[in-house]
Amino acid sequence: MIKIGIIRVLTTADDQLLNAHGRLIERCFPQFETISRCIPNQPEGIHDERTREIAVPKVVRLGNEMASESVKAMIISCADDPGLEELRGIVRIPVIGAGSAAAALALSLGKRIGVLTITETTPEVVRETLGNSLLTEVKPEGVSTTLDLLENENRFRLVSSASELKRRGADVILLCCTGYATIGMAQELKAKLGIPVVDPVLAAAAATWYAVTVC
Amino acid sequence: MIKIGIIRVLTTADDQLLNAHGRLIERCFPQFETISRCIPNQPEGIHDERTREIAVPKVVRLGNEMASESVKAMIISCADDPGLEELRGIVRIPVIGAGSAAAALALSLGKRIGVLTITETTPEVVRETLGNSLLTEVKPEGVSTTLDLLENENRFRLVSSASELKRRGADVILLCCTGYATIGMAQELKAKLGIPVVDPVLAAAAATWYAVTVC
Repeated sequence: MIKIGIIRVLTTADDQLLNAHGRLIERCFPQFETISRCIPNQPEGIHDERTREIAVPKVVRLGNEMASESVKAMIISCADDPGLEELRGIVRIPVIGAGSAAAALALSLGKRIGVLTITETTPEVVRETLGNSLLTEVKPEGVSTTLDLLENENRFRLVSSASELKRRGADVILLCCTGYATIGMAQELKAKLGIPVVDPVLAAAAATWYAVTVC
Repeated sequence: MIKIGIIRVLTTADDQLLNAHGRLIERCFPQFETISRCIPNQPEGIHDERTREIAVPKVVRLGNEMASESVKAMIISCADDPGLEELRGIVRIPVIGAGSAAAALALSLGKRIGVLTITETTPEVVRETLGNSLLTEVKPEGVSTTLDLLENENRFRLVSSASELKRRGADVILLCCTGYATIGMAQELKAKLGIPVVDPVLAAAAATWYAVTVC
């Protein structure tokens, strides 16, 4: 078993929620054993410039702690990649950000990437990684933080926004918040829309798999 | 078992060489069963504008044939992604290009990508996908086609050129010819240089895994 650290940027005392991304990864990569920890005092996760800014030093501190617990790699489970560069600069194991990994995987699957966000703007790292392949972005109505994705009555809005991306010509949909992974959105959208849908947590896991087992 | 088609752009009657990429993929993804075919009359593969141009319709024709043989996805095993767009336009299964997949995976692993080429210029799809993260590129001396990679006496030159990329500040090395996969270069370089090295065939396989098993 290969031990992987998962850094959650949503502060929660609910163990099931805390471990949701880790369990998803373990289902797809049975060779991975995950440990999830969350940064403190971010009950709404990261959803704007301020919540990102205050998260960065917390991610770096937590990542640095986890690196000493014999994990072979770490995933920053947030589409904004908070603290990714900083953490890579100080630990000696691979660190994968869900934002860059998701954008990267999308580029393998198509050329006109439609981004389903939770905020008005696509995170900079995703925007930069996609470059000219970023076709368009849509924020579902009624959603402004990752917590809103957990509300069942918002689900039809998520599906409708994703359909809108396809209608505008997207050949791949990128789920640009790891909260979409928590609610298993990728599988549902793929079945409904018939085009590839990138789950940011599994994209990060695939890159991690490469980093720790191949090269 | 999931059947995957591998399109080789190096024409060869040598079964071991023909199947080299498929076998590598099967070792890393035991759930995949691969079938490899090569396009005709390209004994030196693709190594310039002309050899690329004449390859495109051959790749499309071969891909179209293979799509009817119950493969679940296809990999165009060339860092130049010849015929990728065209083939995606006509078949209904995922088609992954080794060039875009390798560049994409590199973007998940680092920010300053050093490209080990076989020609004077990095293929356009790799250049475009990497964007500002393309740090620098090096072509090993004595190498101008994929066949030169098979010559054992060139191996020290490949290692030396990869070291040069690291010396120039690369945090990831991208092997920009699937011939580097044939000779198992990624593992050797990773062990020698201690930074991630992207094998284009395995990068394509990882994207294919996502496309056919997750979403």
